[in-house]
Amino acid sequence: MPHIDLGVDDREFPGINGPMAFRPETARPLNELAEVLLRAPNSLSRGERELIASYVSSLNDCNFCASSHAAFAAAQLDEGRPLVDRVRADPYGAPVSGKLRALLAIAAAVQRGGKHVTTELVRAARDADASDVEIHDTVLIAAAFCMYNRYVDGLATFAPEQPEVYAARAAHIVDNGYLRPRT
Amino acid sequence: MPHIDLGVDDREFPGINGPMAFRPETARPLNELAEVLLRAPNSLSRGERELIASYVSSLNDCNFCASSHAAFAAAQLDEGRPLVDRVRADPYGAPVSGKLRALLAIAAAVQRGGKHVTTELVRAARDADASDVEIHDTVLIAAAFCMYNRYVDGLATFAPEQPEVYAARAAHIVDNGYLRPRT
Repeated sequence: MPHIDLGVDDREFPGINGPMAFRPETARPLNELAEVLLRAPNSLSRGERELIASYVSSLNDCNFCASSHAAFAAAQLDEGRPLVDRVRADPYGAPVSGKLRALLAIAAAVQRGGKHVTTELVRAARDADASDVEIHDTVLIAAAFCMYNRYVDGLATFAPEQPEVYAARAAHIVDNGYLRPRT
Repeated sequence: MPHIDLGVDDREFPGINGPMAFRPETARPLNELAEVLLRAPNSLSRGERELIASYVSSLNDCNFCASSHAAFAAAQLDEGRPLVDRVRADPYGAPVSGKLRALLAIAAAVQRGGKHVTTELVRAARDADASDVEIHDTVLIAAAFCMYNRYVDGLATFAPEQPEVYAARAAHIVDNGYLRPRT
């Protein structure tokens, strides 16, 4: 049960959707940030960015966010769900580009703490052809999920078990993005 | 030196200001979130909310954010800088209200990870007359600073040493908030 009365049905508003319904004033910039980081035009694909989000959420052990963004990544990557599960289990052995592998290593460092991002990690990403914007966005996606994950679990929100719940939400996000609520 | 070329002078754009100038698309929701969390009308004062932000930034060892929000808190609390320093050094012994002490304990739990926020911590806050909105906002302020801190340090931005730099920024924030850039 959530730590506070969110005023909505848990099953209808699982995870972050509960506190967002409770406090629309903060939901707006939180959704705008997700939209620009994960969906706005970028040299990293939407699938790649959702993969970074899912990976960081796994590292933070946030079941709702990890399951949600794994579904959103799977729906937007040619390689689908098997690649997502592989990256979450073994990012360094997974069949992703050298650039994405280096960016995932930066994301993992950010999850531990900002000062864990070393010159060597950044050089490795640059050697794999990552641009400054891609490095910036990876740092901020990872940092942002250290926020979203803590928000979701810090209020003890409800995380459904059934994969089909996350697949249905993925279909909505792929079509509508983060700024149009699911009705 | 920052990990990427932010395209601005470090001294003019220290800390988070560098990456915000580099990437205005993400700066907008980041500033909007800070404005609604730290300055919008709330039963927690602006000084109290900045104090939570500074405390979490200290726990994350983020010098720029801790120094900035300590200055912003000091400028907006009747008790000024001595109280801010006391809270950062010893939050449980500092002369704050029972409610604020309980909210600081929730913020510290969020900093460690969302699942560290226990029913007991929330009950203690409620017993000290914290409302659901105050508990929600404390969780989100703490979570948001786990993002801002990682963003600032994950890009290795510049943190000035001189207290007067932070005091000058505090004067700007108190008068203008987070949505009007300092020129």
